[in-house]
Amino acid sequence: MTVTVIGTGLIGCSLANRLKETGFANKITGVDKNPENVQAALKLGWIDETCTLDEAIQQSELIIIAVPVDATLELLPDLLGKLDKQVLMDVGSTKETICASVLNNEKRGRFVATHPMWGTEKDGPEAVVKDAFKGRVAVICEKEKTDEDALQLVESLYSIIGMQLVYMDAAIHDVHAAYVSHISHIASYALSLTVLEKEKEEDAIFELASGGFESTVRLAKSNPAMWVPIFKQNKENVLDVLNEHIVQLRKIKSCLEKDNYTYLQELIADANKIKRILK
Amino acid sequence: MTVTVIGTGLIGCSLANRLKETGFANKITGVDKNPENVQAALKLGWIDETCTLDEAIQQSELIIIAVPVDATLELLPDLLGKLDKQVLMDVGSTKETICASVLNNEKRGRFVATHPMWGTEKDGPEAVVKDAFKGRVAVICEKEKTDEDALQLVESLYSIIGMQLVYMDAAIHDVHAAYVSHISHIASYALSLTVLEKEKEEDAIFELASGGFESTVRLAKSNPAMWVPIFKQNKENVLDVLNEHIVQLRKIKSCLEKDNYTYLQELIADANKIKRILK
Repeated sequence: MTVTVIGTGLIGCSLANRLKETGFANKITGVDKNPENVQAALKLGWIDETCTLDEAIQQSELIIIAVPVDATLELLPDLLGKLDKQVLMDVGSTKETICASVLNNEKRGRFVATHPMWGTEKDGPEAVVKDAFKGRVAVICEKEKTDEDALQLVESLYSIIGMQLVYMDAAIHDVHAAYVSHISHIASYALSLTVLEKEKEEDAIFELASGGFESTVRLAKSNPAMWVPIFKQNKENVLDVLNEHIVQLRKIKSCLEKDNYTYLQELIADANKIKRILK
Repeated sequence: MTVTVIGTGLIGCSLANRLKETGFANKITGVDKNPENVQAALKLGWIDETCTLDEAIQQSELIIIAVPVDATLELLPDLLGKLDKQVLMDVGSTKETICASVLNNEKRGRFVATHPMWGTEKDGPEAVVKDAFKGRVAVICEKEKTDEDALQLVESLYSIIGMQLVYMDAAIHDVHAAYVSHISHIASYALSLTVLEKEKEEDAIFELASGGFESTVRLAKSNPAMWVPIFKQNKENVLDVLNEHIVQLRKIKSCLEKDNYTYLQELIADANKIKRILK
């Protein structure tokens, strides 16, 4: 099968690599508005060729949109308009706005709205991870609005690369994504700003930073071109979680200010309950 | 050399293991007020024997205190009083209060105040990591108040297990520790509380949680018996950083509320600068 990947960054190229490795695709065409990204993806062997978007659509059975979610929103109606029997899927971290944007599109059935829950703080074709996606969850939204053959093709794609499928309402996906992904990025960005603001002796950070700091601040390296549009599209849910997060931080702050270490102990014991969920 | 480890938990046993492996110690005596910890440490081979604290001190050249920092504070004057020519060191995450507590002790010179910057979210002798400490920094405070032979012994210990030595004023250590370690734990505890509070459908977290969430929330599994005393002893610095952290979160919140995505982009680009420090 010939597959087109629009957006030859971390996700697009990691996916392209897995699709070639598993034999799902025998040819990958890459399209990206940034010519350097395409050249790097070609050089690294993640894609087999590049051409214009129209040519790519013509010759592919499946087209994967792997660009930031604001660009997805812009591209989507136009891409749907160009489809004949091809299947179009996205891999964005938000689903409600994207699904709503094509709700009444006459070719809605050709589109599969998905979110494979995998990524790293890095970006670009150089950041490809060989064994990406495996063992993680891929969410499919609004499957009832998707043509049967389109859904089946995308289900088989995610199965073949070792992902576990979960079906979800688009709005509910966005609530959960705010909790299990978006807030982690905000907390990490804020932690980085905190430390950079206060800690002027950068050498001290470098020398002393332990593994704990590295893991909480890792996501702060993530590209704003990807994340600002996610926060924008999921604004209400993200604000809701962010408010709750500030409430929790203030509770801890209040314990310290009032020397209430008994309550601090209880709060931390409660926080420990995350062990039951994440082994 | 015979070494006594007081506190046969993660740090005490991981250190004991490295000291045996490197030949620094030929016998390790373990003492812990929790008999289960001692039995597990014996069974797992991290310590060679156990006995009373007094017997352990008598037969050792080096005594390592590896208990929570509140217990360290209680034990320290008593332990110093029992020393003859032995060397006593601690490995706690706070240094100012601990150093101040023995400032005028007549045996101050036998004590080496240290903080090896390594740990995990787990605790107990079962959590030992084989190759612990290597490549990390060990901080030594108030070296000028320490006897030359005691300092040299502890320096050689950290060198032999592959740690890089940094000398620091105790108060300055605590400021940096608040930034590069303590605030990460608070942020992670608060993140866990946020998610557990809001996300009642635990299965959804379990299924959807991606690697990013796991890394930011990992530290929230850390034991309150260890961390509450650290926050208490380093209260002023921790509050200072926590206030700044809340300020940064509020800046991000305000961007979202006002749809000011240009400023949000700038904030995130600033946060990205942590890349220059942590590769």
